[in-house]
Order: sequence, then C-alpha cells, then structure tokens
Amino acid sequence: MSVITVERRILQKNDEIAVANRHYFLRNGIAVINLLSSPGAGKTTLLERTLQHLDPPTVMVIEGDVQTDRDAQRIAALGFRAVQIVTHGGCHLDAGLIRDAMNSADLSGVSLLFIENVGNLVCPACFDLGEDHKVVISSTTEGEDKPIKYPRVFREASLCLLNKMDLAPVVEFDQEAYGKHVHAVHPGLEIINVSAKTGQGLPAWVDWLSHAQQDKLRASR
Amino acid sequence: MSVITVERRILQKNDEIAVANRHYFLRNGIAVINLLSSPGAGKTTLLERTLQHLDPPTVMVIEGDVQTDRDAQRIAALGFRAVQIVTHGGCHLDAGLIRDAMNSADLSGVSLLFIENVGNLVCPACFDLGEDHKVVISSTTEGEDKPIKYPRVFREASLCLLNKMDLAPVVEFDQEAYGKHVHAVHPGLEIINVSAKTGQGLPAWVDWLSHAQQDKLRASR
Repeated sequence: MSVITVERRILQKNDEIAVANRHYFLRNGIAVINLLSSPGAGKTTLLERTLQHLDPPTVMVIEGDVQTDRDAQRIAALGFRAVQIVTHGGCHLDAGLIRDAMNSADLSGVSLLFIENVGNLVCPACFDLGEDHKVVISSTTEGEDKPIKYPRVFREASLCLLNKMDLAPVVEFDQEAYGKHVHAVHPGLEIINVSAKTGQGLPAWVDWLSHAQQDKLRASR
Repeated sequence: MSVITVERRILQKNDEIAVANRHYFLRNGIAVINLLSSPGAGKTTLLERTLQHLDPPTVMVIEGDVQTDRDAQRIAALGFRAVQIVTHGGCHLDAGLIRDAMNSADLSGVSLLFIENVGNLVCPACFDLGEDHKVVISSTTEGEDKPIKYPRVFREASLCLLNKMDLAPVVEFDQEAYGKHVHAVHPGLEIINVSAKTGQGLPAWVDWLSHAQQDKLRASR
C-alpha cells in the first residue's frame, strides 16, 4: 500500500502550508470559502450570480482548473479580482498553490476570498487549503445518491448548496431522498436549495456568506 | 515537484500490470470498455439501458465507486455478472484493482467487459487498466466547455457519448460549440448523442460495441 504512504507524506506537507495560510487569512480578516463540486455542477455560474450581490473591492476569487483560464476571465469581466491557477492535469488545488496565488495578488481591502476548486468530487476534499469553510455544490441533474457515493466531500463541508433547482421537476429529483443521503454522511449539514438561473436561494446563501465574513472579522480582532 | 515524481512511479507500476491485463483479455477474446465521466453524468443508467440490448452470459461489469455497492446491485438486478470495487476514498481505478476483480470473478463465456470507473473527469484518465477503449460520457447538463477544461480524458477516448440529450433543449445546450471543443482537443473523435431516458442513440452505441467485440475476437484468434 505504498500509495497510501505517499499520500500521507504529501498531505503532511500540504497541511503545514495550510496552517500558514490560515494564519495569514486570520491576521488579515479574510473569510475563505473553498467551493467543491463535480464538473458541470454550475460552480462558476453560481459564483457569477453570487458576486452580483457583493462589493468588488472586498472580494477576490481564485479559480482552479485543469486547463484554460476561462473561469477567471468570467469573474474578471464582472469587475472582481481573479487569479487563475491552471493545474495542467492536477486533480485538486493544494495549500502551496493557494500560497503562490496570494503572493501574486493584491489582497488589500479583501475580506472575502472564494476558491473555486478543480471540478472533482473526490481529491479536492482531502486537501486543506487554509480555508474557513468547504462548501459542496451538488446539482439536481446529478441524481440523489452523490452524498453516499462521495461521502468525504459532504462530511468535510460546512454547507451544501443544491444547485439547478429549476431543473428539479424536469429530472424528477427526489429532494427527500437527497436530504436523507446528505444527513446520513453528515448529520445536521445545512442545505440551501439554489438556482443560478432563476436566483432561487441566493439571498439565503449571500446571508450565510455575510455571517462567515462577520465571524472572521471578529476572530481577527 | 516531488508529486510528479511520485505519480510517475505509481504509473510505471500500474502500466506493467495493465500490460498483463491486456494480454489476459486478448488471450480470452474479451473486449474491454473503460467508461469515464464526472459524477452524475448518467454512466450507470446508460449502462443499464445498454445491457437491455446485450446477452447476459456474454457480458460482465466491473463497478468502481468511492463508496457503496449500489451500482453493482443495479447491474446484478438485470441478471448480469457484476463485481463492485469500492475504493474507500480512492479517486480512480488502477490496473491492479482490475486484476484483483478478474481473479475473483468467473469470466467464462464473457466477450465484453464494461469497467465503470469512479466518477471523476481527471484522475481515471491517467490510469491504463488494460482496456481496449476508453469511452468518455459527457452530459448536456454539464455545459459545453468540459472538453477544453478536462482535455486529457477526451484526448484518451476512442468514443464520446453525449448523454441526457432529452435535456438539451431545457438547458439550451449548444451542440455546435460542444463539438468544436471536443474536436479542438481530439480531432475526429466520434460523438454519439444519446439519452438513457428516451433511448436516443442507443442503437448506434450498441453497434459500436458490437464492432469492438468483433475486432477483439479477430485479434485473439
């Protein structure tokens, strides 16, 4: 089982850098949200929609992608600071990449940092980036069983956003079953139903973010 | 960049076992199809639908999941031989797991083996299992840009199935853009539009499988 040993060594180094990142974010009062989902769950579109409710000078976005800088371009087009990390095949962001991104960016005035991780429900869940919260985004079109099939990301998350609610009737999504599956792996995890298309649930999500920011500001004093 | 070194060592060992698997499959005239997609793209449902066109004694399915044996149960319920590999957090299948699955199974009479990989568009693409073909499954609800954001899996694939065609109008899927993106990373890659729900495209896909089986039988003689 040499793979497991290797993974442990990588994770140990990652965790050391994550601690340093966390200190940095705390000193600077920056709330950090690590967004995790499978490819195509609608992370970037939901983020674009979320940013409409937020103040550009106070927010930064780090985009993680295997290839292309399309996502950072989409964010920058809305007038927000954006850093693109292209992993060139890498399946997750790690704490070192976040440290490098911060070193390359101007974080003055920023109190909220979104990290949009690589679209992958498995590996990113294992890597602490120094964030305050992991937020998992599922979409109704993926089916109800993702929480029990990919439990770790749901277990690690502080919040679950169920996206593409506008398509729930079309795909006959069983919300009760989904909720049961989420709470089987993470009892009590808050689920906010959202739709990046119609705007459903956006106020509750923005409110949740605002609380996360206030908590961080208090902790940093 | 120690991670890259580690990855190379793992891949080297994997590739050695994959070669042995490939020899085994060739000797036994078994065509092997490695199905790859993101979580929720509809791999298992499409496979269930596909099996309706196939003969149970000639087909086996290996199901790879991070957690649960739900998928193997679904396949077994249709009267087909199924082996479940639970990776317990692992983000991909490797050649050694496939070898172990074959050692535990009765492959007599089997001429077609489906391997449903872990739902993940990134890592599984790097691991040769000894298969004849990787088939990538996208779904319309994931958006048009997945091929350029996750190029490796599309580059490695022998065939691209575009699933959930029944939802294409609902999500205003731009097929022309999708096709351009697919062919930007893999010129000439065949795309079959399918819907596990309506059955659209199933005959073309089953026909493709039948050719793969015939090719393998010829090669094994």
